[in-house]
Amino acid sequence: MNSVGQKSSPNTVWHHATVTRTRRERQNGHKAVILWFTGLSGAGKSTLAHALEERLHQQNCRTFVFDGDNVRHGLCADLGFSDEDRQENIRRIGEMSKLFIEAGVIALTAFISPFREDRRKVRDLVPEGDFIEIYCKCSLDICEQRDVKGLYKRARAGEIKEFTGISSPYEEPLKAELIIETGEHSLEDCVDQVIEFLEHRGDLPRLRGHSVKEKQA
Amino acid sequence: MNSVGQKSSPNTVWHHATVTRTRRERQNGHKAVILWFTGLSGAGKSTLAHALEERLHQQNCRTFVFDGDNVRHGLCADLGFSDEDRQENIRRIGEMSKLFIEAGVIALTAFISPFREDRRKVRDLVPEGDFIEIYCKCSLDICEQRDVKGLYKRARAGEIKEFTGISSPYEEPLKAELIIETGEHSLEDCVDQVIEFLEHRGDLPRLRGHSVKEKQA
Repeated sequence: MNSVGQKSSPNTVWHHATVTRTRRERQNGHKAVILWFTGLSGAGKSTLAHALEERLHQQNCRTFVFDGDNVRHGLCADLGFSDEDRQENIRRIGEMSKLFIEAGVIALTAFISPFREDRRKVRDLVPEGDFIEIYCKCSLDICEQRDVKGLYKRARAGEIKEFTGISSPYEEPLKAELIIETGEHSLEDCVDQVIEFLEHRGDLPRLRGHSVKEKQA
Repeated sequence: MNSVGQKSSPNTVWHHATVTRTRRERQNGHKAVILWFTGLSGAGKSTLAHALEERLHQQNCRTFVFDGDNVRHGLCADLGFSDEDRQENIRRIGEMSKLFIEAGVIALTAFISPFREDRRKVRDLVPEGDFIEIYCKCSLDICEQRDVKGLYKRARAGEIKEFTGISSPYEEPLKAELIIETGEHSLEDCVDQVIEFLEHRGDLPRLRGHSVKEKQA
């Protein structure tokens, strides 16, 4: 009489989640956190997130990067770029990141996310300390000079409306956990800064021989 | 001159994803798939999904269960129960599951998902073979007798409109990868059936001494 959902034995019936975030973190050997990269278009958010992910993967961490490529064409394909839709976009990315950390994965998100209020809402979704805001600080001048995707040119020509930094504001974080001057340092240095921050918090796996190496350096 | 996004050295600039699904699957030692449980309310979808997750976790797999509890209050909190909203609900769960298998995780989803068309759309989102439809087959009579959440009673009283099986149709899968008769077998047996199916496909980690055990049996 122990069929699935058998009414006569209610205790075996309603099978709740037994695999918790804590068990998954133990399995993985590291903490799950949201690394929320924010900054102007061209500031290097996606570049840094992917380079960091490569490093974390090599350290045997479970990771996932969310960016325009895998979100805007999928989960948020129904959304445009109005204020309302941008807000909903960030909300969904926040909710999804929350599920990823529940799953024990380090979630890296690379979106301009220009508004403090939207970022605060995501921060409030998860337990304190699980949301790490990383401000990719880079002057508008440098971003516009790079113009990797040619978007600034189009924004200046009026072809893109409400472009962050040109015709729509970017609200700098007031209390970001980390500020990375992406215009000033090499990519490797930027990655190092985030890794050091996470190691200092005790989020990453203890690498064999790691402390020895440090002593040698 | 190797700053993040430095314009003068375009090859070091645009850092694409290097951590792929294949690398994650190798890291995890198992394939990532979507296990899509479908069936009437009370058929045991969530129960089976959670019990299966427990078993998979013990086999050192990376897993995550999506159900009403973690989706309806979060990612899909803005959606109601109209036909349109239900469709959008399933679409988002499908897109999210797709990201989870990209992340190397076995995604288990436990939703009634009554319409063939909606399930087919999710199937079409991912490469062939990655979507495994598991029909939790259980007669309406048994589900209604159990009525674990008291929903059938409320539906019969007209308090819940468009309740699947009562006032809204359930479209049985025509070609489910697996049919589990959840009203006929014990929970353990149901879990075994899914595990055997996945092992036969070669999706799960090779357990040490597993083949030896089989020979002994």
